Amino acid sequence: MSDSPAILVIHGPNLNLLGTREPEIYGHATLADIDARLAAEAKELGCELESFQSNHEGELIDRIQAAMGPVDGILINPGGLTHSSVSLRDALGATSLPVIEVHLSNVFARESFRHQSFVSGIALGVISGLGARGYSVGLEALVAHIRE
Amino acid sequence: MSDSPAILVIHGPNLNLLGTREPEIYGHATLADIDARLAAEAKELGCELESFQSNHEGELIDRIQAAMGPVDGILINPGGLTHSSVSLRDALGATSLPVIEVHLSNVFARESFRHQSFVSGIALGVISGLGARGYSVGLEALVAHIRE
Amino acid sequence: MSDSPAILVIHGPNLNLLGTREPEIYGHATLADIDARLAAEAKELGCELESFQSNHEGELIDRIQAAMGPVDGILINPGGLTHSSVSLRDALGATSLPVIEVHLSNVFARESFRHQSFVSGIALGVISGLGARGYSVGLEALVAHIRE
Amino acid sequence: MSDSPAILVIHGPNLNLLGTREPEIYGHATLADIDARLAAEAKELGCELESFQSNHEGELIDRIQAAMGPVDGILINPGGLTHSSVSLRDALGATSLPVIEVHLSNVFARESFRHQSFVSGIALGVISGLGARGYSVGLEALVAHIRE
Amino acid sequence: MSDSPAILVIHGPNLNLLGTREPEIYGHATLADIDARLAAEAKELGCELESFQSNHEGELIDRIQAAMGPVDGILINPGGLTHSSVSLRDALGATSLPVIEVHLSNVFARESFRHQSFVSGIALGVISGLGARGYSVGLEALVAHIRE
Amino acid sequence: MSDSPAILVIHGPNLNLLGTREPEIYGHATLADIDARLAAEAKELGCELESFQSNHEGELIDRIQAAMGPVDGILINPGGLTHSSVSLRDALGATSLPVIEVHLSNVFARESFRHQSFVSGIALGVISGLGARGYSVGLEALVAHIRE
Amino acid sequence: MSDSPAILVIHGPNLNLLGTREPEIYGHATLADIDARLAAEAKELGCELESFQSNHEGELIDRIQAAMGPVDGILINPGGLTHSSVSLRDALGATSLPVIEVHLSNVFARESFRHQSFVSGIALGVISGLGARGYSVGLEALVAHIRE
Amino acid sequence: MSDSPAILVIHGPNLNLLGTREPEIYGHATLADIDARLAAEAKELGCELESFQSNHEGELIDRIQAAMGPVDGILINPGGLTHSSVSLRDALGATSLPVIEVHLSNVFARESFRHQSFVSGIALGVISGLGARGYSVGLEALVAHIRE
Amino acid sequence: MSDSPAILVIHGPNLNLLGTREPEIYGHATLADIDARLAAEAKELGCELESFQSNHEGELIDRIQAAMGPVDGILINPGGLTHSSVSLRDALGATSLPVIEVHLSNVFARESFRHQSFVSGIALGVISGLGARGYSVGLEALVAHIRE
Amino acid sequence: MSDSPAILVIHGPNLNLLGTREPEIYGHATLADIDARLAAEAKELGCELESFQSNHEGELIDRIQAAMGPVDGILINPGGLTHSSVSLRDALGATSLPVIEVHLSNVFARESFRHQSFVSGIALGVISGLGARGYSVGLEALVAHIRE
Amino acid sequence: MSDSPAILVIHGPNLNLLGTREPEIYGHATLADIDARLAAEAKELGCELESFQSNHEGELIDRIQAAMGPVDGILINPGGLTHSSVSLRDALGATSLPVIEVHLSNVFARESFRHQSFVSGIALGVISGLGARGYSVGLEALVAHIRE
Amino acid sequence: MSDSPAILVIHGPNLNLLGTREPEIYGHATLADIDARLAAEAKELGCELESFQSNHEGELIDRIQAAMGPVDGILINPGGLTHSSVSLRDALGATSLPVIEVHLSNVFARESFRHQSFVSGIALGVISGLGARGYSVGLEALVAHIRE
Repeated sequence: MSDSPAILVIHGPNLNLLGTREPEIYGHATLADIDARLAAEAKELGCELESFQSNHEGELIDRIQAAMGPVDGILINPGGLTHSSVSLRDALGATSLPVIEVHLSNVFARESFRHQSFVSGIALGVISGLGARGYSVGLEALVAHIRE
Repeated sequence: MSDSPAILVIHGPNLNLLGTREPEIYGHATLADIDARLAAEAKELGCELESFQSNHEGELIDRIQAAMGPVDGILINPGGLTHSSVSLRDALGATSLPVIEVHLSNVFARESFRHQSFVSGIALGVISGLGARGYSVGLEALVAHIRE
Repeated sequence: MSDSPAILVIHGPNLNLLGTREPEIYGHATLADIDARLAAEAKELGCELESFQSNHEGELIDRIQAAMGPVDGILINPGGLTHSSVSLRDALGATSLPVIEVHLSNVFARESFRHQSFVSGIALGVISGLGARGYSVGLEALVAHIRE
Repeated sequence: MSDSPAILVIHGPNLNLLGTREPEIYGHATLADIDARLAAEAKELGCELESFQSNHEGELIDRIQAAMGPVDGILINPGGLTHSSVSLRDALGATSLPVIEVHLSNVFARESFRHQSFVSGIALGVISGLGARGYSVGLEALVAHIRE
Repeated sequence: MSDSPAILVIHGPNLNLLGTREPEIYGHATLADIDARLAAEAKELGCELESFQSNHEGELIDRIQAAMGPVDGILINPGGLTHSSVSLRDALGATSLPVIEVHLSNVFARESFRHQSFVSGIALGVISGLGARGYSVGLEALVAHIRE
Repeated sequence: MSDSPAILVIHGPNLNLLGTREPEIYGHATLADIDARLAAEAKELGCELESFQSNHEGELIDRIQAAMGPVDGILINPGGLTHSSVSLRDALGATSLPVIEVHLSNVFARESFRHQSFVSGIALGVISGLGARGYSVGLEALVAHIRE
Repeated sequence: MSDSPAILVIHGPNLNLLGTREPEIYGHATLADIDARLAAEAKELGCELESFQSNHEGELIDRIQAAMGPVDGILINPGGLTHSSVSLRDALGATSLPVIEVHLSNVFARESFRHQSFVSGIALGVISGLGARGYSVGLEALVAHIRE
Repeated sequence: MSDSPAILVIHGPNLNLLGTREPEIYGHATLADIDARLAAEAKELGCELESFQSNHEGELIDRIQAAMGPVDGILINPGGLTHSSVSLRDALGATSLPVIEVHLSNVFARESFRHQSFVSGIALGVISGLGARGYSVGLEALVAHIRE
Repeated sequence: MSDSPAILVIHGPNLNLLGTREPEIYGHATLADIDARLAAEAKELGCELESFQSNHEGELIDRIQAAMGPVDGILINPGGLTHSSVSLRDALGATSLPVIEVHLSNVFARESFRHQSFVSGIALGVISGLGARGYSVGLEALVAHIRE
Repeated sequence: MSDSPAILVIHGPNLNLLGTREPEIYGHATLADIDARLAAEAKELGCELESFQSNHEGELIDRIQAAMGPVDGILINPGGLTHSSVSLRDALGATSLPVIEVHLSNVFARESFRHQSFVSGIALGVISGLGARGYSVGLEALVAHIRE
Repeated sequence: MSDSPAILVIHGPNLNLLGTREPEIYGHATLADIDARLAAEAKELGCELESFQSNHEGELIDRIQAAMGPVDGILINPGGLTHSSVSLRDALGATSLPVIEVHLSNVFARESFRHQSFVSGIALGVISGLGARGYSVGLEALVAHIRE
Repeated sequence: MSDSPAILVIHGPNLNLLGTREPEIYGHATLADIDARLAAEAKELGCELESFQSNHEGELIDRIQAAMGPVDGILINPGGLTHSSVSLRDALGATSLPVIEVHLSNVFARESFRHQSFVSGIALGVISGLGARGYSVGLEALVAHIRE
């Protein structure tokens, strides 16, 4: 691994709506805002960062598979796929890369079907309920983990 | 909202097969027949209507997201995604639009895994087992609800 | 079956309260309003219609049994018995008549004990959450089914 | 207890339909046939017998309560109330009389919600699937038990 | 509400047997004794009180519905219907009146099917296991709540 | 089938202990007594009867398999295998013979693991709690069924 | 037991906060107010009363154990330990004293993990949702039970 | 059906990674190797064969739908969709074609969420844990079944 | 291990009935046919093969234990013991031999109690629903695995 | 009971393999070693002891039944039958003898299906995870219990 | 709230062992190290911080209650109490303060009884699996939340 | 480890009551008697032994933590904490010492909530139902294990 680790940020279904819909729940930051902030933080942390959003499970899996080799760690907010996609879990697991799972809202304080995640079982860590800040926190932790 | 409400009709996976396969269960009407009938009824009800079918969860979510703004209500038969897709529910919920869920067959009299719907929890109403007629009924109810 | 099918409308426990209590949930229409509207619609559809309400499970079963012979289809809102009465299901099943189940509110978006219905398993179709309109919709569908 | 024990036969909801509906499941004997046969058998066994049918849980409970004192044992086919009525169980239990539970069809080979009975827990015995013969068998067993 | 609140006391199935059957469990007080004592206590508390017992779910629902308007609070021992009747719950809920649920024996120390109550979810309070005294306690609490 | 049907009576594990152990639960009749009584009754009913007891699941299966052809019906008390043996169920099912299941005590009023039977699902009928009399009743019902 | 029974009142974790936090749920009475009122009522009832509060399960158990001998009955609001402490149940059970369980709010109308109590199974009675009045009611019932 | 049956082989999400990742679990054969081997075997068996892989549920459903008519049987390894996709099951079921389900590893010896398959209920057969050989075995069995 | 691996084929309860009973489900091949075919295939594959059938769990365990040493792999159709016998699983596990589990019918498309297998957790692979062909497939896979 | 109590030691399925297979789990002592040690200890304790092992449930039941009369207590390691055999439990229960259940490994730290025992409910005590020593401990405890 | 928010850090049972035991799981940092690092970070963030560890549920509750008033937010690692203590949840909830829950290891990838937390339901956010870094991340998020 | 292993005996909540309360269940031996007997046995076994009882979970955890280093094995009867304390389990697990769990009564033959133990999963062995003798047996086994 190079000195400047490469991080892939994956945003799952419906996260492209951030900031413009239901801001009282998800905050006013748009996905572009979050990605810009992450890009700045990545610069400061000395790492490379690419973001990818899709509402399509298949595209997310394709992108994760493509990360094997060029990428050193994955920061993912799987959205609604968190609770239903074994295939996404398998794609993440197949990369053998460290994965940190982020949720904007605290999923454990919402409907019971959101309390179970297929991703958590293969994740390094889970951050839930810290809003957009959760991404920054996750990025920092992921980079530190890769450098250790 | 204008005087002539705009309705989006969403048909989920495998509904493109209607009429040509298993007509003893799903009836002889094709999806085109259903859409034509809905178009005629929409005209009579004084509303605008657009139909969309896909076997891809991601495309369905994209289309639902695009409905925010131009559309006043959604009539959806989520097909098999009814029972497995949290992301579809989240997309529908994010629009804050009134949603009516339609099933051609009576899902409550079939396999037990079809008795639970992720969509019902955020729907205005559910119509199950009325065949192609269920769409007409749902359209009429949706338009009436929007006008109230 | 004659040209003019006979429909029995059954209203279960507490539906006699409609319109006067909790109108924000169940609407302002009284049961008399609903029955009047159904009577008018029946006329238009060319069918005969009789309505019956009771808070007594036994009376509902007696009435359903008496329908065997003179009646061609049953439209029922079983109220709270939906979730607890095997006997009501058995009475409906014993008639071998087509049955459509109606709920004013969307029971699938309420308490979890309302998500399961003993009636659905023997019903032709289920309509939930369309308010008083659900009865009209059910009546139309039932008559169409009988005529097919 | 006198030499000639008094037996109460209770038939629950929908059993008044016997013989005329679904004979392929429940046989061709009407409830009157069964009661006549039981009356003849009671005579032979030297016991008194009264039969009572109702579709009303409350009337069944009233009749069971009235049995305390004049009656020596109860033979009951609770119909659909088997699976839903705690009150019926409590009424039977309150009499402290020996109770034999009869089902015409084998409820254990039908829908899973018919596998559980509130009555069985306080019954002396359960007979399921022997058709109308089950009543005769139950009567004989009940009288023998009382005489022991 | 007038100065002298009106209380309806509802006794469910089998409670008419009190005192004469199984006194080791339910005590020696008959239902008449309990009602007499409640009447005396009501006088002392300056409230009006009417008692009603039935073994018929439907009659209980009818009586509860009739309470809307003239009555200020309901004290109910639903007997076996506690554990099986959604309709009774709905009738109580529809009145919007304060409800206190009373059980003579401690239902939580009996069979597991008695641990769950459909009524508790809409009750102000639950009293279980205090014998006939539970009614007095419940009456006093209900009147105090209404006056607050 | 001949005029004189052949019945196989199967007694499962531990039933050889009848009469000598725990008579307060299982009665004073020994297995020999029961078999003698059944033999006498078979004579009276004009049928042939053979009894077989074993504590070995395999021997019971062997005996049931051997019944295919010479035997017209099976009366079985599977003892503890009732609740655990899929193989016994399969053997009984493979014979395509009518089967009546008998239990001396009322298994539905005992430990919860005794409430479920693998045999009931393929049995014609189930008799539980009638003591040794249950065998006689079952024999009579089985012969009647075969002759119908 | 002397003429003047001795009652121990146990308040579990977080009940020391009463009156000062969330008064809209738990009322304005402080624990001191409740204890003062109970002391006055005890005087009137001719019984001795001591109150004890702790946030420590161990201290509560120690205090309950110490009650064996000098105390005639226990009135307990176990707070959050209601739903998690087998040890508290065992301590109460070991005393063989009559126990009445009190909850200020109606725990059966709150989160589902509050519907199950380890204490109820060994309690004489349970009072839930009557607010501070529940203690008075429980005290009176407990003293009456001891004197009977 | 022609003499030379046409078989469609479907590979679900992440199976494109075969051979290059986690060979200790999934073996060293790449998907191209497997497809080449299947092509050779198909030739030998006298059948036509086409393979299709996608990480997109929707594309898999599209391809399966297109098989109706030209194809005589489907051999499928649904990958992670096995455990989550009702829509895939519905597409397979809608074709009315014989389906054999293959898993490289023994899913029944892995995490419990992999023990349940939505596909098995409509499959002719299931092969699990035979590695790449499972495909050959499945192909052979499928062709033999079609020819019978 | 020698060049010519030794395979033990185990047939569980009721499999001796193959071919003569319910051929529409299990096919027309008798167990002797299957064993003859397996013997021929074993010859071709260059392996030794011995078959053993019993309806007795104990005999099956004895035979499996005796395989430790002389045998290189086990092909087993455990019949009804699949779903109930921990001892059979333990015997197979104790041998440390590779095990392939075969079912003639697709157990995953039958009653739910047949969806769970105690054997699968320690098996190399599972083949279900391929009929008698499943044995051939399993034998071939087992021999290939041993030779690898 | 004589001065020198007679103890029956029962070893269930697969325990004949002890010492020669998987010694890292079950230790190096063979069953003969354990029986020899128990014989020596029995001598020291002044009791008679007989050991019996079988892989056949039926033989174990036969042997346990034969113990009624000559034997004063049973020490049993039921092996895999622990978790599946109601018949073994019934045989042990029918003897009315004190029973101590022994497991070599700690079954509570293994697969979840090993956490439940049908035998424990009628045993005097359970010893799990003490290896061969568990037998000695159980013997000593059993003899002491009998002598008390 | 002052400009310099006061944060209480709570460490639950067994966290005093950090660094010296099982460092491969929990890392080499001792609790003192973590507290020192948090103190430094608090300085930098301009907030006041106090840490408290106890193995006693009661002491933790006392400390949390004392935080009402002087403290502006709570950062808590509840240790094993996460999964068992309703009282701790109630104490945290009673403070109405923002709470962030931290776990050193990813509890969602451990035993299933660690997947459920009583605290998460009332927490602002949850951080799991980031090691000691999780505290820093939580502190920063908590302070930012308070300042917003 | 020295030649003379040091053993810590932990007695959980309510065990200080032994001998004086409910002797018919727990025997007449007091905790002092048990500790004295264990001390004598320890002397004979050549090991050092210290006993500790507390009703406080926190004190038990503190004492267990302090055992790391000076102690070679732990013998524990966790009392009611067996079934509720994850923290106690974690403390025992953190010591990495061999642990033997003892219960005086056979917890597996009592209420179902006593069938599950958080401690068993990390224990070397479990002894249940042997009364005070269980401690002696556990001590002997623990010392032998340490010396091996």
